[in-house]
Amino acid sequence: MSHLDPYFKQVDNLQDKFIERLRDAVAIPSISSEDARRPDVMGEWLAEQIKALGGTVELRQLGKQPGREHLDLPPCLLGRYGDDPNKLNVLVYGHYDVQPAQKSDGWATDPFTLTIDEKGRMFGRGSTDDKGPVLGWLNAIEAHQKAGVELPVNLIMCFEGMEENGSEGLDDLIAAEANKFFKDVDVVCISDNYWLGTEKPCLTYGVRGCNYYALEISGPGQDLHSGVHGGVTHEPMTDLIKIMSSLVDPDGKILIDGIDDLVAPVTEQEAALYPPIAFTMDDLKESLGNDVSIWTNKEDALKHRMRYPSLSLHGIEGAFYTPGAKTVIPAKVIGKFSIRTVPNMEIDQVTKLVEKHVNEQFAKLKSKNTFKFHVVHCGKWWVEDPNHPNYTAAAKAVERVFGVKPDMTREGGSIPVTLTFQEQLGKNVLLLPMGSSTDMAHSTNEKLDKRNYIEGTKLLGAYLHYVAGEIKRS
Amino acid sequence: MSHLDPYFKQVDNLQDKFIERLRDAVAIPSISSEDARRPDVMGEWLAEQIKALGGTVELRQLGKQPGREHLDLPPCLLGRYGDDPNKLNVLVYGHYDVQPAQKSDGWATDPFTLTIDEKGRMFGRGSTDDKGPVLGWLNAIEAHQKAGVELPVNLIMCFEGMEENGSEGLDDLIAAEANKFFKDVDVVCISDNYWLGTEKPCLTYGVRGCNYYALEISGPGQDLHSGVHGGVTHEPMTDLIKIMSSLVDPDGKILIDGIDDLVAPVTEQEAALYPPIAFTMDDLKESLGNDVSIWTNKEDALKHRMRYPSLSLHGIEGAFYTPGAKTVIPAKVIGKFSIRTVPNMEIDQVTKLVEKHVNEQFAKLKSKNTFKFHVVHCGKWWVEDPNHPNYTAAAKAVERVFGVKPDMTREGGSIPVTLTFQEQLGKNVLLLPMGSSTDMAHSTNEKLDKRNYIEGTKLLGAYLHYVAGEIKRS
Repeated sequence: MSHLDPYFKQVDNLQDKFIERLRDAVAIPSISSEDARRPDVMGEWLAEQIKALGGTVELRQLGKQPGREHLDLPPCLLGRYGDDPNKLNVLVYGHYDVQPAQKSDGWATDPFTLTIDEKGRMFGRGSTDDKGPVLGWLNAIEAHQKAGVELPVNLIMCFEGMEENGSEGLDDLIAAEANKFFKDVDVVCISDNYWLGTEKPCLTYGVRGCNYYALEISGPGQDLHSGVHGGVTHEPMTDLIKIMSSLVDPDGKILIDGIDDLVAPVTEQEAALYPPIAFTMDDLKESLGNDVSIWTNKEDALKHRMRYPSLSLHGIEGAFYTPGAKTVIPAKVIGKFSIRTVPNMEIDQVTKLVEKHVNEQFAKLKSKNTFKFHVVHCGKWWVEDPNHPNYTAAAKAVERVFGVKPDMTREGGSIPVTLTFQEQLGKNVLLLPMGSSTDMAHSTNEKLDKRNYIEGTKLLGAYLHYVAGEIKRS
Repeated sequence: MSHLDPYFKQVDNLQDKFIERLRDAVAIPSISSEDARRPDVMGEWLAEQIKALGGTVELRQLGKQPGREHLDLPPCLLGRYGDDPNKLNVLVYGHYDVQPAQKSDGWATDPFTLTIDEKGRMFGRGSTDDKGPVLGWLNAIEAHQKAGVELPVNLIMCFEGMEENGSEGLDDLIAAEANKFFKDVDVVCISDNYWLGTEKPCLTYGVRGCNYYALEISGPGQDLHSGVHGGVTHEPMTDLIKIMSSLVDPDGKILIDGIDDLVAPVTEQEAALYPPIAFTMDDLKESLGNDVSIWTNKEDALKHRMRYPSLSLHGIEGAFYTPGAKTVIPAKVIGKFSIRTVPNMEIDQVTKLVEKHVNEQFAKLKSKNTFKFHVVHCGKWWVEDPNHPNYTAAAKAVERVFGVKPDMTREGGSIPVTLTFQEQLGKNVLLLPMGSSTDMAHSTNEKLDKRNYIEGTKLLGAYLHYVAGEIKRS
């Protein structure tokens, strides 16, 4: 693989240009959960970038958003670079939409202005999740061109704009195109997760699923003055807080009957995977930003992140949320929470148990308020065979670029599309992350380190060479 | 009191002008809890109005806001109309600041544009709380002037701009001016509460107090991704929701040990006051906007509004609050709640019980997060002698304007200044409301009915004549 050297050299030469590309991408606030920022502009920008590199692109319209028919879904970018029938076809997936972000959330810098500090940390919403990795593929193409090294595979690209909002429309698209646009795909590679620590790359062969729910309680016809009506009316906040408090304990234990029974027991073989992983409690403390881990040893912490379920309470819509004091009785409040799921928790089984639990809890309250349970979005967990040549190739690429064997891990955060590709295309899916554990995806001060972006671009390119070597077209 | 007739006639003649005055006042978004809208502009506008009527005015600066020293407190307007030493000195109090309001909270119309519908309902933030009543006093002066009827009292005005945010600075001002600006005050009249229903005026001789608290829980160094860290970290939301759920039951019962023991038992004499009050469960249902009353009969509902404590959960700062789905673990959340207090609950006794309770609850959680208890603001309850001539005079004015005897009531919402005036000036304080039970103060779609504004202006003027007749200067 000596032809990787000129490629690596060009990646180094082009790094300023690659950072400018990321700066331009971060500047587009493509927040898929905000109507006004439906991220279609970002799709067009990305399409132009790929076309400029010589790729072909279609921005596929996905129709209206289910349940919110005034809104178009963001288009899905279907792209291709190379169409040599003798080459392996590698499908790469990423997403160009981002989580919400406002300076006032606690960002040290404007979230949509890429800001690089003296440690090479590149702060900005979407820097690591997932604009940096998506641009990594484009950077890899460009560096190959500049190096005069032929790309050893055909690159098939699927970059969606709705990942942070349930990937609405994507499953249907993949199903519809499984035997068309995706028909020649040999393997799938997704760069949309994170190293466990900050030094050593990993390959990820499983992710947790996510069932996201909302509890809506309404009562009074409008917000009320707590002095005038406190003590007289059933208050939706009181009811909601009671139900939310029944879901999970401070030590993370889920209190919904039957959930634990669905979790596959840890086998001895599986348990043996955890001790070798390069991860310390200090890494965890750094990524949490404080000494607030529930667990006191690495293995427990990793298992509860990778292969046990969790339940998080995200917030309440409709209640008083600004600084200061407001003596209001909110008339309608919506509590949001989600459950991270693992084998063998089926989406509908979990939803049934949750619905039963919250209905029972509300009935206990004997409240005159009205309760509605909503399923916001659900994505199933996914587990892959980590001994497939797709993984072997990626492991070799990691050793070549970083000089270490990667950790073999499962991931806490859901990436539902992994499962869709696995089921619809019947091909091996690999998660090959670019960012590190301290990147703060979905949080304030999200960042991607320069090293991860540049060496990560080398890794993605190297992977394409190794996978072309490991797998011959059947 | 035949000279009231020309006064009433002028109020009717001037009603369009009075409504324009209210429209101008509502257009100033004088939200005292928002830094950027510190309501000094409103104070100046009001001062100009009083000067134009021939009154004298000082906008007294109250210094910096305690704990937030970058912010000036809004000035308190001290005004006077008339200085005849033979006349009774009536102190009238009101406030020119308002609760927060945004169209997106659920307002049918822009909250800062007075909008009048076909039923004569005048919608706008501050219309009824408390700009309408404050302007009622100005309207009364103007109508007297136009009618050529001499005002029978000297009117001493105290209009503050911080009522919706704890009346910071006001108590000190009143204490400092008790023997200066306020030294000749004979009686006090405050129009800042509401009729019990929509047809019959009331006089109010007591109000509940309000102790407002915040529970701050912080843990992770920054917001986290619930997929990456859910199940691994102690989550501030989980802890906060547990503590908030321990405060009150859906039927309004306060769960904090010792609170009930502080509440004075209902005497037979007192219990007898409730049945005659003109109030129905239908009135209650209308003011709640739905059938969500905890109580099934009038007496219980009235007692729980007027003379029993209540606890309301207002909301959470720092958590996810917008529509949509965000898979965030908030790093720091602040839960807000308040307790409405009644005789004999002393502020510090209540705070001590609350602090003990929440500290015990947090300790039970065995969480590594950090918990802080904050007292946001407290105002004590107030009860007055309803047989004082100040009340007799007001009752006569009600009969003259509305043709009915007023209900004698206590109010659920706190008006802490009542207590301060009672204690500092040693004079009788009367609450003489203008608005009705359906006005939705502090809520979306706050309004004041045209009838209440115009007949209420007549009432305020008539009260001045009757109180001048009932009480001779000592």
